[in-house]
Amino acid sequence: MSKKIVMALLGAGRIGSIHATTVAQQNDVELRYVVDVNERAGRQLAEKLNATFSDTNTVMADGEVDAVIIATATDTHADLIELAANSGKAIFCEKPVDLNFNKVERCLKVVAEQKVPLALGFNRRFDPNFSALQQQLKAGRIGELEMVSITSRDPSPPPLEYIKVSGGLFRDMMIHDFDMARWLLGEEPVEVFATGSCLVDPDIAVAGDIDTAMVILKTASGKLCQISNSRRASYGYDQRVEVFGSEGMLRVENETSNRLECFDSTGVIADKPLYFFLERYAQAYRQELEDFVSAIRSGDEPLVTGNDGLEALRLANAAFESYKSGIPVVIKA
Amino acid sequence: MSKKIVMALLGAGRIGSIHATTVAQQNDVELRYVVDVNERAGRQLAEKLNATFSDTNTVMADGEVDAVIIATATDTHADLIELAANSGKAIFCEKPVDLNFNKVERCLKVVAEQKVPLALGFNRRFDPNFSALQQQLKAGRIGELEMVSITSRDPSPPPLEYIKVSGGLFRDMMIHDFDMARWLLGEEPVEVFATGSCLVDPDIAVAGDIDTAMVILKTASGKLCQISNSRRASYGYDQRVEVFGSEGMLRVENETSNRLECFDSTGVIADKPLYFFLERYAQAYRQELEDFVSAIRSGDEPLVTGNDGLEALRLANAAFESYKSGIPVVIKA
Amino acid sequence: MSKKIVMALLGAGRIGSIHATTVAQQNDVELRYVVDVNERAGRQLAEKLNATFSDTNTVMADGEVDAVIIATATDTHADLIELAANSGKAIFCEKPVDLNFNKVERCLKVVAEQKVPLALGFNRRFDPNFSALQQQLKAGRIGELEMVSITSRDPSPPPLEYIKVSGGLFRDMMIHDFDMARWLLGEEPVEVFATGSCLVDPDIAVAGDIDTAMVILKTASGKLCQISNSRRASYGYDQRVEVFGSEGMLRVENETSNRLECFDSTGVIADKPLYFFLERYAQAYRQELEDFVSAIRSGDEPLVTGNDGLEALRLANAAFESYKSGIPVVIKA
Amino acid sequence: MSKKIVMALLGAGRIGSIHATTVAQQNDVELRYVVDVNERAGRQLAEKLNATFSDTNTVMADGEVDAVIIATATDTHADLIELAANSGKAIFCEKPVDLNFNKVERCLKVVAEQKVPLALGFNRRFDPNFSALQQQLKAGRIGELEMVSITSRDPSPPPLEYIKVSGGLFRDMMIHDFDMARWLLGEEPVEVFATGSCLVDPDIAVAGDIDTAMVILKTASGKLCQISNSRRASYGYDQRVEVFGSEGMLRVENETSNRLECFDSTGVIADKPLYFFLERYAQAYRQELEDFVSAIRSGDEPLVTGNDGLEALRLANAAFESYKSGIPVVIKA
Repeated sequence: MSKKIVMALLGAGRIGSIHATTVAQQNDVELRYVVDVNERAGRQLAEKLNATFSDTNTVMADGEVDAVIIATATDTHADLIELAANSGKAIFCEKPVDLNFNKVERCLKVVAEQKVPLALGFNRRFDPNFSALQQQLKAGRIGELEMVSITSRDPSPPPLEYIKVSGGLFRDMMIHDFDMARWLLGEEPVEVFATGSCLVDPDIAVAGDIDTAMVILKTASGKLCQISNSRRASYGYDQRVEVFGSEGMLRVENETSNRLECFDSTGVIADKPLYFFLERYAQAYRQELEDFVSAIRSGDEPLVTGNDGLEALRLANAAFESYKSGIPVVIKA
Repeated sequence: MSKKIVMALLGAGRIGSIHATTVAQQNDVELRYVVDVNERAGRQLAEKLNATFSDTNTVMADGEVDAVIIATATDTHADLIELAANSGKAIFCEKPVDLNFNKVERCLKVVAEQKVPLALGFNRRFDPNFSALQQQLKAGRIGELEMVSITSRDPSPPPLEYIKVSGGLFRDMMIHDFDMARWLLGEEPVEVFATGSCLVDPDIAVAGDIDTAMVILKTASGKLCQISNSRRASYGYDQRVEVFGSEGMLRVENETSNRLECFDSTGVIADKPLYFFLERYAQAYRQELEDFVSAIRSGDEPLVTGNDGLEALRLANAAFESYKSGIPVVIKA
Repeated sequence: MSKKIVMALLGAGRIGSIHATTVAQQNDVELRYVVDVNERAGRQLAEKLNATFSDTNTVMADGEVDAVIIATATDTHADLIELAANSGKAIFCEKPVDLNFNKVERCLKVVAEQKVPLALGFNRRFDPNFSALQQQLKAGRIGELEMVSITSRDPSPPPLEYIKVSGGLFRDMMIHDFDMARWLLGEEPVEVFATGSCLVDPDIAVAGDIDTAMVILKTASGKLCQISNSRRASYGYDQRVEVFGSEGMLRVENETSNRLECFDSTGVIADKPLYFFLERYAQAYRQELEDFVSAIRSGDEPLVTGNDGLEALRLANAAFESYKSGIPVVIKA
Repeated sequence: MSKKIVMALLGAGRIGSIHATTVAQQNDVELRYVVDVNERAGRQLAEKLNATFSDTNTVMADGEVDAVIIATATDTHADLIELAANSGKAIFCEKPVDLNFNKVERCLKVVAEQKVPLALGFNRRFDPNFSALQQQLKAGRIGELEMVSITSRDPSPPPLEYIKVSGGLFRDMMIHDFDMARWLLGEEPVEVFATGSCLVDPDIAVAGDIDTAMVILKTASGKLCQISNSRRASYGYDQRVEVFGSEGMLRVENETSNRLECFDSTGVIADKPLYFFLERYAQAYRQELEDFVSAIRSGDEPLVTGNDGLEALRLANAAFESYKSGIPVVIKA
């Protein structure tokens, strides 16, 4: 039996709890510490998972801690990553590293110097649906890829207070789709055109953001990708992807909680899509942590690295610039 | 260009009109006569289709008439078939030949003696869905056939007056499913078990009939077939077939008028099945007449013959007997 | 019974034959003339439909001719429309009126002066699927419309000779989607961004065209529409539309020739989309002619008018300009 | 926080391990003992779940043990249930209690006398699909229930050695469907007709069993139910249910591992059903244990009781008798 991997959780909020519970259930992983600014929440989670409530310094100082999971507020990610890297810990960090491109670059430089693995929480790559699609695409199932279509809509907008500090729709929401696009396209986009509107809630416009957007990406070889976002889909979390190639098309339809259909005088009614990311991506959240643990053991790169975070942010920034200027933006690598 | 086939329609009701319109649109077919006890309806249809309103004797006496379409009341079918056969006409007759087995046998004997083609209106075999299923089955797509499941439900019961003279659910409604079963099984059932209830309308029980039924057929080699009937499906005409074999399953889902889906807060709503036989089998009605015309030209047997009517009636009678006695009935060929 | 409408067909090619056959089967319509530069084809169709093979001058001079169907080569449309308008005939013309915007404007001016109805063959509006979608959208089924997504892919590219004179992908192929977009958006786009590639066949690039394209349209109120085109979909004619609104989403999936599914060890296999426009839009071709006849009788406008052709061409031209310049183009009405 | 429930697992095989892992992950449940005739397997599981490997006597003697999970060989179930009941433990037992009806009756008498809860592992009632169907049925979603259709096919037959001691298809396999039928019908069947064949593997016939079966159940009020079984479905575990009522139909389609579709020149290919019960009913296995724990806490009856096992066995026996005699069997309660 292999040596236990010792982990610490930084940030005991909703998504942090999910990650901690996942690793606590894995064999050969010990969740030793839970850290949170909210002592009550932190202690409660620690107790439930047989871990110790502690603080960041203790975690970093404990030489037996192999890895940290960072699920704190966004603006603390970069500093914690650097701290963990300098302490020689493997790092799993919720997206994004930071909303500031330069800060991300500096942070990744530290990670690179310390040669620690950094996995980023672009959870969708681990969804069994998208994962199967990507594998079949890569295996040549539809020949040469030509077009990607990504539909990504949240069931309802986040609170205005969140929107104000979110970095805006392109950096906060569509960044997941930019990562999906990069992953599927297999080459970097060289041009972004973005447009958008505020159709869902005028207060979002007042807060300086949009809630509805469409984007077209183009790669050097001429592959095209369209992305459609809305902050509000009355029928639930709309998460679909299509890839079109020289020999066919692969598409992923929404997941539902069951396969029940009702035939009545009004039609045939099936279940609507799962409500939101916690439901839709429950399995993906487990898979991404398993990938992280497996990467620590094998020494291989995690599936999603810090660089993927940087490149997705580059696209999000370019999309924002395109939206503001009204013209396409050329991506400089 | 081949010689025109001259036809006459006997019975200008709803289904007769459909058949007459179909043949009138075919090249190289001349619809010469329309006959009906209702002179007004007959004349109207004749005028619309550039045919002559006439009577049965004239039709039979006209040596240029190659074929007749019989769509009159059920109790006139057998006599008209014999008359047409004795006049040397090819015959397309709506199902059934007759509700009396012996009378059907006598009638088919006349047809056989006169060596005229007799096509029977088991329209479902011509439905593009069931036709594709049967072809793939026959081509070995699912290996060796083992089980057949037929679901067949009408949107609403016919008038009580009709039910009283219909011959009962097994002979009037399930007879279509017996034909489907024989066609798909590829061998004759040797045993029938039938059960049923009156759950839709108590007046149907008063009239001596049932409105809900289930049947199991078994062939000599052990193949099984289940049939489920109801006189009332609130969501429309439910017409589905499944065939299960050693290497897979083929199934036909209901047809709908469009492929529109609505995603909203109540679920995903698609169109319900087409309302009834006129909608669902519109194409089948055209195909069966084309098959008839083609059989006349080629001299080949029509796809559905008088004998198919006889055998389906044999199963219906056995099912009725099983329902009455409460035990399975062995089929004697 | 109402007076017969007398019609003439100009252009007895594939689509002309379909239209002529449709009207010949309608009650109260007389197809009197068939005109074609290919005398053999014209005479053959005329004979089949009991019409007279003739020439344009005779058609225009026959005061009993109420309407003409123009299905000739594209570059003759505008002249024939003007001629027919000046002869007081109602006009059904295959799209486009012309590839030159100014010529279309001049032509429509003549039509307006002569006050004759001009129906244009944007057949997709008459597809039962898109028609149902548009009706439900208009009826408020999904609240306020926010986004439209149109996927439109041909099974295979046309001959290079055709591509060279086609006006290019935006004017020849995507023009159908621009019409669909206008119809569904319910307001005119004010901005177009178009991009494209040649990924299917390099000879298409040599011919100065593209075979793969994506477009985003934006209206004054901020509604967005994305269109995706390819000249080659290995799985058949891909014709799908989605409309997204404040209370839900409506979408139309592809039509197939049957509802048969095969379950086997490789998965569940269903029918692929209908092959091409003749199969997919067979019913739409009938419906658009019925709408034309009905418009002649009622004096109402046809569902698709010359102006719709003009506006779709305006969008196609703007898209081409955007594609060439690489930046969005503002539409000037 | 409520008192911990202390549990012991009897039988550390495949399904026992699943149950033990499930309860070990629940809060407020302590899995104290693992018992198995195979010491190595038992110790391994015990170690993994932080439990103690022990023996039945120790378990029964430990007054702190609240409940036992019985997942041993079928022929030990009844004795262990009696032993546990006499020791005052709550009992979760894999189906069946026993293959002998009288033995089950005696066993349930002991359970009743000791007033301990006995939950039986008819896992399918806990499947989210069938559970949703049953809830909507009960809530009146389709009006008055009239017909039930159950399709239940295994991907491949069990080993012949298993078949020989299994009790036969009706008692081993279809017993799940009899429970489903009873649960959905809402009243007890009063008549069973069963027929079957050996079409999959002739060795199964040699072993005195069948591999293909169809059954019809009828209740006193005339409700009908059809069940179709096969020991081999090449496309995976086929588990579907339909309920038909006065106002509509509810149906559950098979679950798949993803919602990926591939459109190519051969058609549209989707995922086949999940392979077998471990995959399909993974969630149901968790839910049934949660129901058991919740029943212990609340003092309410578990969803599936010993009596449900008895009644399903009564139907299975009647079906076997009907199959042997060739005539329907009346159920005597």
